[in-house]
Amino acid sequence: MNDAPLGEFDLIDRFFSRPAASRTDVILGVGDDAALLRLPPHTELVAAVDTLVAGRHFPHHCAPRSIGHRALAVNLSDLAAMGATPAWATLALTLPRADAGWLGGFSAGLLDLARIHDVALVGGDTTAGPLTISVQILGHVAAGTALRRGGARAGDLLAVTGTLGDSGAGLALATDRLVAHDPVAATALIERFDYPTPRVEFGAAARGVASAAMDISDGLAGDLPKFARASGLAAHVDVGRLPLSPALQSVVAPAQAREWALAAGDDYELLLAVAPQRRDELEAVARRLALNFAVIGELRPGNGVHWTHDGAPFAAPSHGFDHFR
Amino acid sequence: MNDAPLGEFDLIDRFFSRPAASRTDVILGVGDDAALLRLPPHTELVAAVDTLVAGRHFPHHCAPRSIGHRALAVNLSDLAAMGATPAWATLALTLPRADAGWLGGFSAGLLDLARIHDVALVGGDTTAGPLTISVQILGHVAAGTALRRGGARAGDLLAVTGTLGDSGAGLALATDRLVAHDPVAATALIERFDYPTPRVEFGAAARGVASAAMDISDGLAGDLPKFARASGLAAHVDVGRLPLSPALQSVVAPAQAREWALAAGDDYELLLAVAPQRRDELEAVARRLALNFAVIGELRPGNGVHWTHDGAPFAAPSHGFDHFR
Repeated sequence: MNDAPLGEFDLIDRFFSRPAASRTDVILGVGDDAALLRLPPHTELVAAVDTLVAGRHFPHHCAPRSIGHRALAVNLSDLAAMGATPAWATLALTLPRADAGWLGGFSAGLLDLARIHDVALVGGDTTAGPLTISVQILGHVAAGTALRRGGARAGDLLAVTGTLGDSGAGLALATDRLVAHDPVAATALIERFDYPTPRVEFGAAARGVASAAMDISDGLAGDLPKFARASGLAAHVDVGRLPLSPALQSVVAPAQAREWALAAGDDYELLLAVAPQRRDELEAVARRLALNFAVIGELRPGNGVHWTHDGAPFAAPSHGFDHFR
Repeated sequence: MNDAPLGEFDLIDRFFSRPAASRTDVILGVGDDAALLRLPPHTELVAAVDTLVAGRHFPHHCAPRSIGHRALAVNLSDLAAMGATPAWATLALTLPRADAGWLGGFSAGLLDLARIHDVALVGGDTTAGPLTISVQILGHVAAGTALRRGGARAGDLLAVTGTLGDSGAGLALATDRLVAHDPVAATALIERFDYPTPRVEFGAAARGVASAAMDISDGLAGDLPKFARASGLAAHVDVGRLPLSPALQSVVAPAQAREWALAAGDDYELLLAVAPQRRDELEAVARRLALNFAVIGELRPGNGVHWTHDGAPFAAPSHGFDHFR
């Protein structure tokens, strides 16, 4: 909070002072050496940090509003994967120059999403340099109830929220690597890339029902091996069961859609393990939230990820398909 | 935690897995979507974030060990200014390439300081890009007891810990803008720039005694106006009372030493307001910690900073003396 290039305090006052939340648990927010926050009783603190670098996590020409949204969304997604309730965030913003237009869009994207989840921006640091955005998200969860990656048991079903691959298609469309003949589908897919929706409500409702969870940020082919390893199990997945949106299926052939679903990343859906007898409960949560929910396979004793397609072994695309990764 | 360029997980395993602290309040550290942490009862959470950019906050050729130390030290200094006890940190590290030598030095600098303060590194995110380091520090303070910037009253004395200007001299020496004839003094001053000491113990002991505090990171001339404004008071300071170390006085003339003390920054000492009748208590704390403690002026009704030297008005150097700011 002490560094003052670019008129940091002007910037923060001007663009980040719009109240994002009306929280009574912020004793002291932006403006002192540190924030003072009150955690609810009988909860654990949940903390995560994610960094976005221009040209790597989003195209250089990306709308600033989308960048602001994404910077918070990827962090909210980490809390969703723990079943935690987000509460506060800090922002470390490094940018080449203070451009009022850019900052206006960026802050609107970040603060609009913050308000949806009642998250208060309680601290920040603005420095001059190459565009890099780190958001740290803080939240809480009832003691002992957080969802973990490593809680799955053999026999658990593997499931995902929403649909996969939409962001990969959206990025291809936004960067003119793909031309779609259906403008409505194209707009919807680009929106999915630009404004990912963290599954915070689903994650909170899955506590005590799912046995393990993580968010899918690098693509299922990149994230599922970590998920299976955390519980010391083997994942068996039929790629024919991957949930693909009608929009995605309308713009590319099935093989391309599956490739994006597996390797493009940026979907920010949840990957869950659930005992077969509790599957109904997660399906009910999904229905209540009007969210797709798909069982894609199961966890068995062993290790690694065993992909099949129509019963035959299938080689998942290697990670790194997307040129921004 | 989800991004995996440069073999992030290898990096974190290899360089950051050395236990920095043996805390029983880390329920879940690095390796899941978020960390789970247990706050002591009847405390408030204290959170701050600071970013370092190469070529701006430290010279490009700076030793990686010093950069790692600094990244945590500047954040610990923010908690010291609140009188808080640091507990956990997360690291967002953006670096051009995975260089084992650089990472070894950087992590040693960060983790050695973390161990001194019993801080656990509980999360991180490593991405490829221009060297940028954001550390978020988390700690706690007994509810209602945190030191704030704005708690001072008219009549309070203004005081600082340690000595000022040493880091400015150290940077000038390290970057060959200054040649010292006393190698022992030069080494000591460079050490002050490379390895700033956050005044965590002093800050904690000043709770309930000092009426306000902040850390001096931008230089007294930059930080004192903010400090006075936070309490709605005028600061009156005699620059002849600025605490200058023997080492600093041995390498440059008094006017240059005062200029660094006022404007060079990076000293990470504490600026405090204390009622005159409680001055003895802070002096006793300083003696116990073998730390210099100097009263430099007082707060009076009004606003702004009124500098004097030997009774005559004095114009403080404008901020931005240091070419790294």
